[in-house]
Amino acid sequence: MSQQKARNIIIDAGNTRTKIAVFEESSLIDLNTISNTNWQDILKSLASYKNENSLLCSVLGIRKTQELAATLGPKIIFSPETATPVDFSGYATAETLGADRKANSIATWSRLPSEYGLVIDVGTCIKFDLVNAQGKYLGGSISPGLNMRLKALSDNTGRLPYVKVKNTEAKLIGNSTESAILSGCLNGWKAEINGFLAQYKTAFDDLTIFLTGGDIYLLDSLRKNGIFADENLTLKGLNLILAYNA
Amino acid sequence: MSQQKARNIIIDAGNTRTKIAVFEESSLIDLNTISNTNWQDILKSLASYKNENSLLCSVLGIRKTQELAATLGPKIIFSPETATPVDFSGYATAETLGADRKANSIATWSRLPSEYGLVIDVGTCIKFDLVNAQGKYLGGSISPGLNMRLKALSDNTGRLPYVKVKNTEAKLIGNSTESAILSGCLNGWKAEINGFLAQYKTAFDDLTIFLTGGDIYLLDSLRKNGIFADENLTLKGLNLILAYNA
Repeated sequence: MSQQKARNIIIDAGNTRTKIAVFEESSLIDLNTISNTNWQDILKSLASYKNENSLLCSVLGIRKTQELAATLGPKIIFSPETATPVDFSGYATAETLGADRKANSIATWSRLPSEYGLVIDVGTCIKFDLVNAQGKYLGGSISPGLNMRLKALSDNTGRLPYVKVKNTEAKLIGNSTESAILSGCLNGWKAEINGFLAQYKTAFDDLTIFLTGGDIYLLDSLRKNGIFADENLTLKGLNLILAYNA
Repeated sequence: MSQQKARNIIIDAGNTRTKIAVFEESSLIDLNTISNTNWQDILKSLASYKNENSLLCSVLGIRKTQELAATLGPKIIFSPETATPVDFSGYATAETLGADRKANSIATWSRLPSEYGLVIDVGTCIKFDLVNAQGKYLGGSISPGLNMRLKALSDNTGRLPYVKVKNTEAKLIGNSTESAILSGCLNGWKAEINGFLAQYKTAFDDLTIFLTGGDIYLLDSLRKNGIFADENLTLKGLNLILAYNA
């Protein structure tokens, strides 16, 4: 009879949706993403994992987080005090370093073939985070993600429409309000990412780059360029945190 | 007795402040910028130019715009129908092309030593606009300006603070929430501008670049790099529109 593999449940409750991931040791075997508007579905799903080996990471308010915790009975509720295999103590405001940035850095460090690992998360925000092979977190940057840029233009000007991305490419020179906004926001977002990458490559010779986040699909040229893309990197980092606290 | 030069008054009423500029022909001889919160001061200043040769450009609502117009008695109230020396008809949504983008393009075209002129306005938004020597507007792009990025992070996440720019440089790798935000927003904003510039330079051989807007001071390296910086370019473009309609 083969030995059953250990099962880990990772719950990542974000501002708009909750991810429910099932790992067998380090392998992600199931992922269910539910909009927070379907709150009862989230609770029903969590109840089915009650008292398993689980970690809950939530950016939601205390009442909703407690509701998730009461339903799941997690082994770990991730907090700034949770022990991690990467050392974040060099960050001056470690208590406010986001769980996603920590998880990304840990997942990057865990599979790092070189001296430095850079992870780029292209989601709600663009986040760059740098870790070294000794497991020391070195810092990074945060700027608005693509949709936040598009939304900021309409929120702040009162004259520009809220435009949505329909294609992975935009022309350089827009000849309408919509195409000018798409050029500025999509091409600008790409130019920012490429500009940061170039600066990191200049600063660090032995650097491996990882890419994650919901907007990965817009960066096909990067994915083909020796960069490891993994849309589940954050969940894998959280799974490593759970294992570290076994 | 020397002939008195023609005097033109240009009023540029933006969302937060109003600029009152006095030109002698094409020379800007006086500029007064008043916060819109000091509305009575603006009206008092405008009254002193009543019935002079003037142009009013306002992004404010109809009631405030009418109050400015009644006080000033302008020769031209700038609108999408105002005649201009540059042809904007190739823009698919010309009726919604901002007056600032039109004025920047006209000022750029008026002093263009090459086949193409690119003007970058780094203010509330980043705006790139391209015009050719024949006076044809070719289009451009719009993305959030620096302060809009910093504001969007705190407005949209609920966890990040609103950080203000204190220096013209930010380190690449932030080691606190504040320095990570400044790296992402200031360095990202610069990387976006540099990336666009590189793409335009590749696409257009005979290109002259102009730079304007309130955040010019953060781009010293560009200003030293063969780019014409003029913080009053928009006002000069509006003055050309007034002259064109003489």
